[in-house]
Amino acid sequence: MSFMSEAFKYLAASIAAGLAALAAALGNGKVISKTLEGMARQPESADNLRATMFIGVGLIEAVPILAIVVAFLILFL
Amino acid sequence: MSFMSEAFKYLAASIAAGLAALAAALGNGKVISKTLEGMARQPESADNLRATMFIGVGLIEAVPILAIVVAFLILFL
Amino acid sequence: MSFMSEAFKYLAASIAAGLAALAAALGNGKVISKTLEGMARQPESADNLRATMFIGVGLIEAVPILAIVVAFLILFL
Amino acid sequence: MSFMSEAFKYLAASIAAGLAALAAALGNGKVISKTLEGMARQPESADNLRATMFIGVGLIEAVPILAIVVAFLILFL
Amino acid sequence: MSFMSEAFKYLAASIAAGLAALAAALGNGKVISKTLEGMARQPESADNLRATMFIGVGLIEAVPILAIVVAFLILFL
Repeated sequence: MSFMSEAFKYLAASIAAGLAALAAALGNGKVISKTLEGMARQPESADNLRATMFIGVGLIEAVPILAIVVAFLILFL
Repeated sequence: MSFMSEAFKYLAASIAAGLAALAAALGNGKVISKTLEGMARQPESADNLRATMFIGVGLIEAVPILAIVVAFLILFL
Repeated sequence: MSFMSEAFKYLAASIAAGLAALAAALGNGKVISKTLEGMARQPESADNLRATMFIGVGLIEAVPILAIVVAFLILFL
Repeated sequence: MSFMSEAFKYLAASIAAGLAALAAALGNGKVISKTLEGMARQPESADNLRATMFIGVGLIEAVPILAIVVAFLILFL
Repeated sequence: MSFMSEAFKYLAASIAAGLAALAAALGNGKVISKTLEGMARQPESADNLRATMFIGVGLIEAVPILAIVVAFLILFL
């Protein structure tokens, strides 16, 4: 029965990693697209927007990176 | 039969971590993109908007972080 | 059969915690983003908007926090 | 029972790779389409927008690439 | 039991290839439609937009192509 546990390990890691990828890409895509929209409308405040974009990307990626860590923990534990 | 329980543990942790990642990224993405939109429209109130953004990100991440804690509890309990 | 019950415990807690995270993040994200939009359009009423935002966030997080409590109860009961 | 584990391996790798592809394509699609929109509206700031686009694409692809790595790890581990 | 593993192989390859196709089509569709929109609004910058479109399509297809590679690996491994 130990192989059953092994099998679910793979499935679990893929769900965690896949959802984390989906999450980070959707969140980052939204933020970066708004940054580009703002830069096109007001080119003079491009630096300010880009700085806030990096803060935002960092905040968004915090939880998906934790989910990737959970995926690796599941695989190698 | 104890291995069955082990197997579901991995699956459960991945669901909790994956959904938490999805949640945090979607919520943060929405808030930060609106902040950027507001900063592009009114650059003079950028500091005020960025401060509210950090409050908002903190409020949004509260429940996903709890879900990550549940994921770790499931893995190591 | 007792181990099967144990297995479903983990799965149930993860679904409750994950969906609670998703719910709170989506709800808060919508409310806080509209607050930011309103603050950018009318900076003079920023304090009023931020106060209402906190009431809204509190009301939104009530049920997800209860779901997290249900997740902990499932795990430790 | 070892073949069951093998079977789930394939399923897991496909879920991780598929969700990563979905994530990267949706995120990149949003960012690049906004870049094109901005370039059509303000052709003079096209270089600035394209540079930010490349930064954004790099940031978005970070977590999906990690999910692809998880998929390969699952297949060849 | 070896036929079970064979069966899951086909299922897994189809999920990976299907999600990759969905991903690439949605991402490319968004980008190319925006290119056409921009070219209709500003016909004089059509060449510039078309060049950025090709870069964008290349960037979007990177991860789905990797998912297709995973699908072939699953089938022929």
